[in-house]
Amino acid sequence: MSAPRFAFTIAATDGAARTGTIAMERGTIRTPAFMPVGTAATVKAMKPADVERAGADIILGNTYHLMLRPGAERVARLGGLHAFMGWERPILTDSGGYQVMSLSELTKRSEEGVAFASHLDGTRHLITPERSIEIQRLLGSNITMAFDELVPTTSTREVQAAAMERSMRWARRSRDAFHDADGGVHAAHNAIFGIQQGALDEGLRRASADALIDIGFDGYAIGGLAVGEGQEAMFGCLDYAPGQLPADRPRYLMGVGKPDDIVGAVERGVDMFDCVMPTRSGRTGQAFTRTGPINIRNARFNEDQGPLDPECGCAVCATWSRAYLHHLVRSGEILGAMLMTEHNIAFYEALMADLRGAIAEQRLAAFASGFRARYGAGKGGQG
Amino acid sequence: MSAPRFAFTIAATDGAARTGTIAMERGTIRTPAFMPVGTAATVKAMKPADVERAGADIILGNTYHLMLRPGAERVARLGGLHAFMGWERPILTDSGGYQVMSLSELTKRSEEGVAFASHLDGTRHLITPERSIEIQRLLGSNITMAFDELVPTTSTREVQAAAMERSMRWARRSRDAFHDADGGVHAAHNAIFGIQQGALDEGLRRASADALIDIGFDGYAIGGLAVGEGQEAMFGCLDYAPGQLPADRPRYLMGVGKPDDIVGAVERGVDMFDCVMPTRSGRTGQAFTRTGPINIRNARFNEDQGPLDPECGCAVCATWSRAYLHHLVRSGEILGAMLMTEHNIAFYEALMADLRGAIAEQRLAAFASGFRARYGAGKGGQG
Repeated sequence: MSAPRFAFTIAATDGAARTGTIAMERGTIRTPAFMPVGTAATVKAMKPADVERAGADIILGNTYHLMLRPGAERVARLGGLHAFMGWERPILTDSGGYQVMSLSELTKRSEEGVAFASHLDGTRHLITPERSIEIQRLLGSNITMAFDELVPTTSTREVQAAAMERSMRWARRSRDAFHDADGGVHAAHNAIFGIQQGALDEGLRRASADALIDIGFDGYAIGGLAVGEGQEAMFGCLDYAPGQLPADRPRYLMGVGKPDDIVGAVERGVDMFDCVMPTRSGRTGQAFTRTGPINIRNARFNEDQGPLDPECGCAVCATWSRAYLHHLVRSGEILGAMLMTEHNIAFYEALMADLRGAIAEQRLAAFASGFRARYGAGKGGQG
Repeated sequence: MSAPRFAFTIAATDGAARTGTIAMERGTIRTPAFMPVGTAATVKAMKPADVERAGADIILGNTYHLMLRPGAERVARLGGLHAFMGWERPILTDSGGYQVMSLSELTKRSEEGVAFASHLDGTRHLITPERSIEIQRLLGSNITMAFDELVPTTSTREVQAAAMERSMRWARRSRDAFHDADGGVHAAHNAIFGIQQGALDEGLRRASADALIDIGFDGYAIGGLAVGEGQEAMFGCLDYAPGQLPADRPRYLMGVGKPDDIVGAVERGVDMFDCVMPTRSGRTGQAFTRTGPINIRNARFNEDQGPLDPECGCAVCATWSRAYLHHLVRSGEILGAMLMTEHNIAFYEALMADLRGAIAEQRLAAFASGFRARYGAGKGGQG
């Protein structure tokens, strides 16, 4: 029996939280899942085998970065993103919608799409929903994201509503392009998610969810959060947004987040996450620990023989001391970025495993409050 | 039966070349051996397990760098260099003599030693033969190098002779300090090498060798070469220098070199090498191949699906294409430096294995001429 295209199975629930699996042809994703970000066809400073060993079932690739360098057609000629970067398990690609607005220059939006100048070399490009889907197909993406329009959170409700409504029209065009691509062959083996917009407005979120459900997707993302609104406002939105989406489909909160953001979102019914925080922090000397983040550059670690996190089971904590990592990071050594990143990814993946276990055993509330008490109040955070 | 302190066994010879093993408490070193350079307690951009998997039996640590950061006493308090960096096999440390002259500022030489200002923070330090040996012992070095004085190759013969003679006096002080350290406990488990000096003057080299033999060392290094004199002049010196040193002791050519330098030196009777070239090149986009070095940044590799070197058995060549490495290096990704370095170290270690095999089978001349013909004339070098 061949592997299913996309089968989401909920094994257990605890309050609004769920744990289960998404079975796909390239492998099974355990949920709640954290997806390390592999921006430019690499999870920065890590080999794919180490990403997998750290516990990741799926990684994320960035359409915007890859379309500019090395180019989607080139990746396709080289056999697709999996072969190119040596990662065999599922890959989710974003649509480029977020980054074209945050990174590119001279953007011009229209109903057709977004024209922009590359931040690398100033060359002009156009992303439409159809082109975004084509790029994701050329990359060999297993979970394609619909192309959407983003506006600043400080925009008026009118602007937010218009952007959401355009995003829903683009979602339909994305879904149609996905199903038509390559004569339907790509859609027969892969999945597409829609993205709910509507900022912090419950009514807009409801309208967006209804529009997406009407189009029909394999999974549903919650977009437009973690863009500066703060955790309290985000949780306020997550008190209703996941419930507006189908219970039998995965819910993916894009770009989130800090460990305590993830715990709170899982409690509110989110199944999937991605964030650059563990990788980016790893390159700047921040390590995540169960008692809060630490900055390994701090002089108090210069003879600390303990591991980054005494409770961590990762390969880094099994071998190297805080003193050694302090030395490497202070010396600007590449190995410092490598080991810090690997630990941070392992920390995130271990947190997801802990959350899955707590949901399965109906003890999520106790786990979450225990996590928050230690993570927020711990000595680790004083680095 | 416990492992020997230091046992050099020559298994086969072919002309002046030899192959064999150096058995030490922390492991056996197959000779001819290439030692990756682990300057600041890390072979740059590689995990120790990958260094070992690439074929290295021993690595080199730099006294000068480590005494300044994190400091020899600190490394000792943290359990020594092996525990600190997670490398269990033998470590050779240089004496600091070369780098104090090439990197530090405001150096002042005297019969006592060399006073200098740190290139990191300007703090003043003094290295004497006794302090160099103490630092190496604090680091937990398995092969300690005698402290020597270096002068520019452009110096007069008189200056060269004076520096060589002072280096021989320092060699005796180094040997004595090594044997006295820690009441003899350190010397009972580890080894010390003397360093032949004398620039390109056969008579000075002879006098230096005789002085070192009179003092008595476990192995003998050839110093003061690969400092700009060119391969022809270096080989000219190596036509006589190894033969001036004891046949039953390892001969170590410091700081060498390019692959074809190593082949020529092995033919002339050298057993050990170290060089930053494979690691440094790996961070700047140069890959070694059996048909010559290539610069992976070159546009001709942008869709090249082949491995860096089709004949290479390393983990990098088994997984990733030239096109992918081109993309990573062009994008400034850390993974690019990681994979290029790993391949380069594996290339060097495979070359050493090939040399050992050729000597064992008495076909070194044919191997060396075949290597030179392909390495020098190949297409790989046109990158």
